[in-house]
Amino acid sequence: MKQIKRTKITDALQLTSLGEEINVKGWVRTRRGNKNVGFVALNDGSTINNIQIVIDIAQFGEEFLKPITTGACINVNGRLVESQGVGQTVEIQATEIEIYGPADPATYPLQKKGHSLEFLREIAHLRPRTNTFGAIFRMRHHMSYAIHKFFNDRGFYYFHTPIITASDAEGAGSMFSVTTLDTANPPRDKEGKVDYTQDFFGMQTNLTVSGQLEGELGAMALGAIYTFGPTFRAENSNTPRHLAEFWMIEPEMAFYDIHDNMDLAEDFLKYLISYALEHCSEDIAFLTKMYDNELLDRLKFVVENDFVRLTYTEGVKILE
Amino acid sequence: MKQIKRTKITDALQLTSLGEEINVKGWVRTRRGNKNVGFVALNDGSTINNIQIVIDIAQFGEEFLKPITTGACINVNGRLVESQGVGQTVEIQATEIEIYGPADPATYPLQKKGHSLEFLREIAHLRPRTNTFGAIFRMRHHMSYAIHKFFNDRGFYYFHTPIITASDAEGAGSMFSVTTLDTANPPRDKEGKVDYTQDFFGMQTNLTVSGQLEGELGAMALGAIYTFGPTFRAENSNTPRHLAEFWMIEPEMAFYDIHDNMDLAEDFLKYLISYALEHCSEDIAFLTKMYDNELLDRLKFVVENDFVRLTYTEGVKILE
Repeated sequence: MKQIKRTKITDALQLTSLGEEINVKGWVRTRRGNKNVGFVALNDGSTINNIQIVIDIAQFGEEFLKPITTGACINVNGRLVESQGVGQTVEIQATEIEIYGPADPATYPLQKKGHSLEFLREIAHLRPRTNTFGAIFRMRHHMSYAIHKFFNDRGFYYFHTPIITASDAEGAGSMFSVTTLDTANPPRDKEGKVDYTQDFFGMQTNLTVSGQLEGELGAMALGAIYTFGPTFRAENSNTPRHLAEFWMIEPEMAFYDIHDNMDLAEDFLKYLISYALEHCSEDIAFLTKMYDNELLDRLKFVVENDFVRLTYTEGVKILE
Repeated sequence: MKQIKRTKITDALQLTSLGEEINVKGWVRTRRGNKNVGFVALNDGSTINNIQIVIDIAQFGEEFLKPITTGACINVNGRLVESQGVGQTVEIQATEIEIYGPADPATYPLQKKGHSLEFLREIAHLRPRTNTFGAIFRMRHHMSYAIHKFFNDRGFYYFHTPIITASDAEGAGSMFSVTTLDTANPPRDKEGKVDYTQDFFGMQTNLTVSGQLEGELGAMALGAIYTFGPTFRAENSNTPRHLAEFWMIEPEMAFYDIHDNMDLAEDFLKYLISYALEHCSEDIAFLTKMYDNELLDRLKFVVENDFVRLTYTEGVKILE
């Protein structure tokens, strides 16, 4: 096969150089067609959109093309042509195809149909290839980056606080213990208690529930810092609002008053949502269509309106 | 005191608007002077450099100024004037001073002198205020940001992989166990073994030693991902090369060959070092002067030279 530098599908879909021969690689989302021509929707995760590969069946032979089914991984050289279909401007007329790996239609679980989140939970190794998880992962990336960019551009320093810690910020009952002791047979002291002096750090340690303690020390030295790392809560509550492991952002600023804090919070939220609207528009459109038809409007509403500032007393009155 | 919007010291040092009244806040690094005039070196962590506050002692009174010693936290309004001293272009002629907090010279441990790293280890809550730790923390921030920027600009997605995991990537002997069981008295099954079905996740779990497993799944769906999160190794080796908890970067790319991988690694290192040379020049200068006088030259050497690509056999020959 001719060596052509790969173009990501997100970039290929923007190309206007009709007639150019390009290379794309990815996973087959669907294949349809007739005896003469095949249409493959190819996706490489760089965007929620697929690029259409048009295959002249006589040129490649039916036998060769057989393994190109949903989930198969292929390498395609082809000429960029104007698309006849709706919703896309260009497609690729295949000149050469290499099959990196087939996906047996009898066993490959991600076929062309809606899959429930419960089902996808059982195939955690494949679900990142779905539109839903792809959208969420891409948006999570863009939001993480925007969080760093927001703080970096404002002179905040990213502060890595300890994950394993001996400090007990919110009550030991809700913390995960971390140990290298033999749980089945831990060493004991003279009183029969577990002898944590023999543990890895010579004391009892837990997973952090918050980086705030160290964050405050950072702010009292560097002026303004933020943490953004995993935190852990062992509350035994299986509710949709509880996560045992989650990434949390904690800004800490020296010399900020309550007004500075409120400005920062409002700026931060509006910045992140604006960033999402700009960089994740296609994924947001997908989620709005499939999961929550008010999503886009709600995001725009937050960006376009000033936050109301009110006193505690006024807040209580509204709630009454 | 007149309300003036605070200027960070890193920005104040760049100002050229002589005569303007500005506000700075920070911690006193040193105070010297004579009966008529005091000179305070003020730092707020935004830069390794201090700004000099010039105080007319008669104006404020000796008694009021007494608590302004090393470590004290103060709020200063003052007029920006040309500096008479070397190494700085501007200083501040104080017009108003508020003392946020004093620091008793008899007990505040960070006095104006060199402190050993061993001593600083004992005052972990204050060491971020030193030049050495400040430099390292600022550079760590800039490097973290540059890591995200490098990958983001190249279309990689940041992938958060699990910290608590049941998968055992590199041998259980080197992993930290995570549990909510009562270590002193864990529940037992019929055979007397620890009954992990009663643990938080219903099984035995550990802290991750690598995000690679999930990272590869991400790459096989999103095309190119990177992880950047804490990982944990419980090897019982107290060497300077071992860390029990550290942040690791793992890029995983679909469709990359060995040449793509080598290009990425070289680009990545050069990008980070160039970024450091551009954004951390003052902190690098400090570390070069105080810790390693070849540091700056070594960094420049890596950026300015192409990496040699050689075969395994050639590599072995060089080592023979």
